[in-house]
Amino acid sequence: MILMRLAVVQTNPVFGEVRNNLAAALAMMERERADLYVLPELFNTGYNFIDRNEVQKLSEPVPGMTSQSMAAFAKERNCFVVYGFAEKSEGIFNSAALVGPEGVVGVYRKVHLFDRENLFFTPGDRGFPVFDLPIGKIGIMICFDWMFPESARSLALNGAQLIAHPSNLVMPYCPDAMVTRCLENRVFAATTDRVGRENRGGFDLSYKGMSEIVSPRGEILRRLGTDKEEIAVLEIDLEAAKNKKINSQNDLIANRRVDQYSLQ
Amino acid sequence: MILMRLAVVQTNPVFGEVRNNLAAALAMMERERADLYVLPELFNTGYNFIDRNEVQKLSEPVPGMTSQSMAAFAKERNCFVVYGFAEKSEGIFNSAALVGPEGVVGVYRKVHLFDRENLFFTPGDRGFPVFDLPIGKIGIMICFDWMFPESARSLALNGAQLIAHPSNLVMPYCPDAMVTRCLENRVFAATTDRVGRENRGGFDLSYKGMSEIVSPRGEILRRLGTDKEEIAVLEIDLEAAKNKKINSQNDLIANRRVDQYSLQ
Repeated sequence: MILMRLAVVQTNPVFGEVRNNLAAALAMMERERADLYVLPELFNTGYNFIDRNEVQKLSEPVPGMTSQSMAAFAKERNCFVVYGFAEKSEGIFNSAALVGPEGVVGVYRKVHLFDRENLFFTPGDRGFPVFDLPIGKIGIMICFDWMFPESARSLALNGAQLIAHPSNLVMPYCPDAMVTRCLENRVFAATTDRVGRENRGGFDLSYKGMSEIVSPRGEILRRLGTDKEEIAVLEIDLEAAKNKKINSQNDLIANRRVDQYSLQ
Repeated sequence: MILMRLAVVQTNPVFGEVRNNLAAALAMMERERADLYVLPELFNTGYNFIDRNEVQKLSEPVPGMTSQSMAAFAKERNCFVVYGFAEKSEGIFNSAALVGPEGVVGVYRKVHLFDRENLFFTPGDRGFPVFDLPIGKIGIMICFDWMFPESARSLALNGAQLIAHPSNLVMPYCPDAMVTRCLENRVFAATTDRVGRENRGGFDLSYKGMSEIVSPRGEILRRLGTDKEEIAVLEIDLEAAKNKKINSQNDLIANRRVDQYSLQ
């Protein structure tokens, strides 16, 4: 058994208030001990950008102010954190960083950009990475990636036992769909959404909350509410995600029949 | 608009009573006019085989008695029928035939065999075919194929507007998971399950019913009950499945990023 304490940290960031959003998230994280904290997509900047200039201004490199604060927390608590942010690099990416006691472990860049994100961000270019940590094998995808079954499937085939899934959900489908994603891949998932509303530049977005932890058997182990900041911590056994057999005959990974598919 | 009348025919076959099961299904079909009738997996034989000899004895070639009866019905009513049966060929396959006014249009052979089916059937070897009919483009998968996202994805990429999905469900997950399958591929699906129980050779199987028609937007347009034979007919517009755009920026097929996936 690899027992680990997994936290989903459902926040309500204020657009553009990077330092305050970071401080608010850390305050919530300090209330609960965990081995891995998963925060929302773009948790420090807010989501509803009006133009590319705003994204440029609020983005930051890695390492940067946010990664350093998270790394300090991770070092003090001997834990890991996955959080979404706007990554300033050779482009600006909608990214999620994985930070641990030694600093930045890796970054995932969102592959499937949603709606107006396409106007502001560069599409991810590093596939779906899985990080082999002492607590288990952690894969990352971001929000709308859920809608493409190839995302979670790639993570599972890359060895993920848990999918950390920072999100800013504006459509209603994801929380139930993640049950299917976990069932079909026999993995855990931690979908961390935000709550609140951002009405900017004529675009009025309300975030759905409902952050959740789902098991490889498709059980919703915990689902948060739709309108409050909240942190949930569960102890889970990531070993359960190694067993892809659902009966004596069927292994959901080994039984894939790639030669029969038409996936190009 | 391609308006078509789609029927799911939830039956309760008696194991081994091929002629009676066929007659009972036809009697239900005669009560409702439709352009396409979808019947359960192995609707004429029953499901819970004890050994390969039973499968051998109850299987039939195409054309065969069942396809000829269905073709006669299809000719008289000018319609199409998809039904599951044990196909006697160079192996014995868990297959579904598509029959129309001119006879057999095509056969799909189940690619992902469930549990003890692996002891009795040869795995499908013809991929996921889509049939271009006057009523629209119809793809076929069978029961457990749902659990592999590659099945419905292959059908969608092969052009299916509707997935005809004969099933014999013994696990509880499929009816909700089909919402995800339809959402992610923007297709209609008609999952036709059976009801009843088969307790044979020490294996006691209860079938879940809950046959359903789901829209490309993930709406459950109709879901049947868990314990009764029942037929449901809906008029649907298959054109809706041609539009893969969910907002001005996102097309769920065009936005796939095959170079970023790890699917081997």
